[in-house]
Amino acid sequence: MAQTEFELIGKHFSHLGATRGDVRIGVGDDGAVLAPPASRELVVVTDTLVEGIHFPPRSPPPSIGHRAFAVNLSDIAAMGAEPAWALLALTLPDSDETWLEGFARAAGDLCRRHGVALVGGDTTRGPLSITVTLIGIVPIGTALERRGGRPGDAVFVTGSPGDAAAGLALEQNRLHVSDPMSAQILRDRFLFPTPRCEVGVALRGLASACIDVSDGLGGDLEKLCGASGCGAEIDAAALPVSEPLVAAVGREVAREYALTGGDDYELLFTVPLARLGAMTHAVALGLGPVTRIGTLMSGNGVRVSARGGVTQFSGSGFDHFAR
Amino acid sequence: MAQTEFELIGKHFSHLGATRGDVRIGVGDDGAVLAPPASRELVVVTDTLVEGIHFPPRSPPPSIGHRAFAVNLSDIAAMGAEPAWALLALTLPDSDETWLEGFARAAGDLCRRHGVALVGGDTTRGPLSITVTLIGIVPIGTALERRGGRPGDAVFVTGSPGDAAAGLALEQNRLHVSDPMSAQILRDRFLFPTPRCEVGVALRGLASACIDVSDGLGGDLEKLCGASGCGAEIDAAALPVSEPLVAAVGREVAREYALTGGDDYELLFTVPLARLGAMTHAVALGLGPVTRIGTLMSGNGVRVSARGGVTQFSGSGFDHFAR
Repeated sequence: MAQTEFELIGKHFSHLGATRGDVRIGVGDDGAVLAPPASRELVVVTDTLVEGIHFPPRSPPPSIGHRAFAVNLSDIAAMGAEPAWALLALTLPDSDETWLEGFARAAGDLCRRHGVALVGGDTTRGPLSITVTLIGIVPIGTALERRGGRPGDAVFVTGSPGDAAAGLALEQNRLHVSDPMSAQILRDRFLFPTPRCEVGVALRGLASACIDVSDGLGGDLEKLCGASGCGAEIDAAALPVSEPLVAAVGREVAREYALTGGDDYELLFTVPLARLGAMTHAVALGLGPVTRIGTLMSGNGVRVSARGGVTQFSGSGFDHFAR
Repeated sequence: MAQTEFELIGKHFSHLGATRGDVRIGVGDDGAVLAPPASRELVVVTDTLVEGIHFPPRSPPPSIGHRAFAVNLSDIAAMGAEPAWALLALTLPDSDETWLEGFARAAGDLCRRHGVALVGGDTTRGPLSITVTLIGIVPIGTALERRGGRPGDAVFVTGSPGDAAAGLALEQNRLHVSDPMSAQILRDRFLFPTPRCEVGVALRGLASACIDVSDGLGGDLEKLCGASGCGAEIDAAALPVSEPLVAAVGREVAREYALTGGDDYELLFTVPLARLGAMTHAVALGLGPVTRIGTLMSGNGVRVSARGGVTQFSGSGFDHFAR
């Protein structure tokens, strides 16, 4: 069933996502025309998912559609911005109606939930790969960065890192979990991660540094520390491992998943001691699930304290070329 | 020689392109932070090149780097915008230093020539594919569109369409040209197309509609006509075929290349009769190489007049799924 490139785009993507008044010209011309708000800065991010590298071959199309946008929403969240406009570059081996429908439905649901309009894209033939570019909006000078952390700042993480890595292991039959309910929760944490956009916006003026956890908590904390010119010590017992993860692999291994697993798309951020009161207040007001896991220190590198001992973190996290 | 994803990006791409004062945070954080100018609209475009689909396997890395940005600059030009910021999503089978150096050098040269800063990106492992997203700036309400053409408007094209298609045929050994100088000029027109950014900016307030010629002049004119709700008649004898193309394939076949070949990245635009004087003036001031090739008509579709007869254009142009 041959379809032209343009029919594909038109049918499945022209109305994907939110409707926004600041989109002057949307999908269909050589480019989209957008009206940025006055006195704001833009945050732009782009991330690619390649079949076999970032998700297992023959993953469910709704999961691929969701994740392609979620990983970019997570980067926007880590900068403290509100997502606004997206572009989708989709490379497909063939034009499979069912696949496209599932992909577009999940992507559209997530975009609408976050007020994101799809304003452009490109559909080409080739090995399955999806590149999304997202543009967000932030008040001038308020974007969160990795480099603002200082020794003494408290280190926090959202959600329950490690679940997604266990979910991927389940998807790939590298892990077996007897309880079907726990297994499904963990799988879904990989297949449909929750970008923490509301938390990111609430952290403006509160967090001193922020990064999203995509390559593993320990490795991403190393990056935040490197950018901030300091080290960190985290308490293994404080890691917010989920009940399904503990049920699946036990508490010790759950902490290893939390430290070194990837694909979490949680936010890892630091708060100066002087703002811890405001932070507690924000949590009380419903900031979302956040847990203090440690403290920034002078020096460099990440140390993990467990059972009275302290060890240097050595997992290098998820790296496409190294592994 | 294993390298980490981050070393790759850092080394080859962190300083690629122009330096711009409106880039508050560039490559290296979760996202870039940009300061858009007041009272302007943004034009955003994205295009993917896949090895074996958009360029022959083992194409020269400088050509791939140049084309990945040129095809997007051409879309920005077709909207009448000035390019400003780019994001590069690069998927590579391996980390080949020589390849990356050639790719980055050519991409950087083209970006600097057009004042474009590279502000973000993503490097992943997988089958060779490049997605560039470009953001341009245009005064409010002045972006060119495909839909503004009206019957009676004159139809123009920049440069010499058809050269690139002949160049690609030479690269693929589907065409043989005895004169090495002509062959090299044609190859270079495919390998290193010239995006018409200055022409696009000059056409604001002058052109009634504009599109870039990427899929073949005839097919792209059909798209402009479809968006504008009219037809067009073009004069085959007026098509600006280049001397090297005529030398290579003869005048008749050269016109076929000009009408149906792809990968030109020229601008195809229409000018109302009332503005033809201003158009002539702009050309006299150095607008660049533009040629009138026909006229928009009532009705629909594209007709080609040649040797006193008129035939309906039927080439469907370049389509990834259809061919």
